[in-house]
Amino acid sequence: MKTPFADQFIAAKHGAGGPAMRALIGSVFLADVEDSEVLAMDDGAAIPFGDQWLVVTTDAHVVHPVFFPGGDIGRLSVCGVVNDLAMMGACDVLALTSSVILEEGFSIELLRRIHASTQQACREAGAKILAGDTKVMGRGEVDQIVLSTTGIGVTRRVIRGGGLQPGDAVVITGTLGDHGLAVLSARHSLGLQGDLLSDVAPLNGLIRQVLLAGGAGIHALKDPTRGGVTAALSEMAERAGVAIVLQQQALPMSDAGRAASELLGIDPLSVANEGKALIGVHPDQLQAVLQALHSHPLGQAAAHIGQVHASEKPALLIDTGFGQRRLFEKDAEPLPRIC
Amino acid sequence: MKTPFADQFIAAKHGAGGPAMRALIGSVFLADVEDSEVLAMDDGAAIPFGDQWLVVTTDAHVVHPVFFPGGDIGRLSVCGVVNDLAMMGACDVLALTSSVILEEGFSIELLRRIHASTQQACREAGAKILAGDTKVMGRGEVDQIVLSTTGIGVTRRVIRGGGLQPGDAVVITGTLGDHGLAVLSARHSLGLQGDLLSDVAPLNGLIRQVLLAGGAGIHALKDPTRGGVTAALSEMAERAGVAIVLQQQALPMSDAGRAASELLGIDPLSVANEGKALIGVHPDQLQAVLQALHSHPLGQAAAHIGQVHASEKPALLIDTGFGQRRLFEKDAEPLPRIC
Repeated sequence: MKTPFADQFIAAKHGAGGPAMRALIGSVFLADVEDSEVLAMDDGAAIPFGDQWLVVTTDAHVVHPVFFPGGDIGRLSVCGVVNDLAMMGACDVLALTSSVILEEGFSIELLRRIHASTQQACREAGAKILAGDTKVMGRGEVDQIVLSTTGIGVTRRVIRGGGLQPGDAVVITGTLGDHGLAVLSARHSLGLQGDLLSDVAPLNGLIRQVLLAGGAGIHALKDPTRGGVTAALSEMAERAGVAIVLQQQALPMSDAGRAASELLGIDPLSVANEGKALIGVHPDQLQAVLQALHSHPLGQAAAHIGQVHASEKPALLIDTGFGQRRLFEKDAEPLPRIC
Repeated sequence: MKTPFADQFIAAKHGAGGPAMRALIGSVFLADVEDSEVLAMDDGAAIPFGDQWLVVTTDAHVVHPVFFPGGDIGRLSVCGVVNDLAMMGACDVLALTSSVILEEGFSIELLRRIHASTQQACREAGAKILAGDTKVMGRGEVDQIVLSTTGIGVTRRVIRGGGLQPGDAVVITGTLGDHGLAVLSARHSLGLQGDLLSDVAPLNGLIRQVLLAGGAGIHALKDPTRGGVTAALSEMAERAGVAIVLQQQALPMSDAGRAASELLGIDPLSVANEGKALIGVHPDQLQAVLQALHSHPLGQAAAHIGQVHASEKPALLIDTGFGQRRLFEKDAEPLPRIC
């Protein structure tokens, strides 16, 4: 990062998926990493294995509340890693592992419900949990349940979040912010649950269709989870050394999501999604990709939302219809324990 | 398990590595698992991949205190999964992943020390952490730090904990109980730290030598972690449908371990080890295996501790020199958060 790392204690921002988290990771965890044989990616790694790549990713899930409109921590724990694999091009999931950390006194009936939802998400993704671990901490030593999941996938071609090229179209596969807004609404009992549902879903089936339709024209993939679209596109622009200009009018939102974001005063571009992907695609393949998306149940609201431009400085901008302004990632955590 | 699962709430015993944990896993997590292509193992899974097996295992680490004589949670998080892979015959580690769950306010200086120790253990194991995740929970929502690690290894031959055959010799690679006793001593500030050190170490190098020396004569491997030697051998006997008779006089213990277990009144056979393996070996290969163990720094105190016998009922027995008695696994947690 630009400034030396001076923080002495962990703060919520260090888990927020933004610049503070990347600074912590760069300063502490990646200070000594180098391996030319391995592609260290945005959300995982790709390891050469025979004539394919083995893709590996891991995620801990600490969402609060554990059950929220449209999903729960079990479904989230599967979709989170399946989607990270898919974003690297690995739509075939070889194996998942799941570590379960439980607070003493947690209800076994709730655990069964979480497991059933986990298995349902696995079926949707064509994935299986093949290894697990169970740990119990005392009352007050962990808040209810934490699930840590690792995914292993295979692919012949690795896609990178930083692969954007000038001229590319930027596509999002559906409406913005539904996960974060649904979790927040449930957490604060805002009574918005009626139509407002988390979008948490496994995207590997959808991305498989996108890769078939777009072929080598698919230059970059990333799922806008923590920090939302703003964080994901800022990181993509930074890595590719390009500018991205979004069209505000083109951003798809559900009616319930729009209402909730206005009521809560939260920018839907900065809120986590758990069933959406951002796609950087060569203009020649744009229409084929949009057609593939619209013919899939999870891509109905897909839209072409922006363009990639050559730029001396990486930047993310939004065209509001009255001019362009820059969007900046938030350093602090807007929504703790959103995933 | 023998009785239907009637517990309604999570208790410490459900994380203890014994019968209660296996009952929970069987009742909740494995109720719907079946896959003939995959070997679901004691501590992981083996997936056919080309002409090899991809071996996968996962572990969450919640040890308290985070630093203990001889190690810390970072070293433990690497050794735990590297050893589980080695016990399945996968001494070559393809990748590790690490999820870090931090309590707000945790010291970044301590995090750096934990990371340095993690990297040291990786170097000893010839392994690398290739993907990670960082989550932050609020104060009081998690106790300091939890590390969840997944390991991926490759092997041409998968070894099973349940592969014991009548006539096999049972070997342990070193002294009993040092990890559990060192953690307990540190937790209760017993001042025994002088000579009493956790044995936490990566065993893949040692097991590679054992497999070279013993070849197809190596029938079973298991590391006696939670629940100690009693839990590990009970499970091995159960799975193989055999009886195991241990010779009490042959059990190797460090002087500090023996003193601590007597002072604390804790059976060293029931205490966790984090750098030891139990080996079931055909008698024809026993001497070669013991020689290989004794010529490795981690196998100096290796000993032939028992024999496997055909039996109508699986059982673990100990010959005290004055007769034989049965050993039983503990259902409840003798030592919570030992790993």
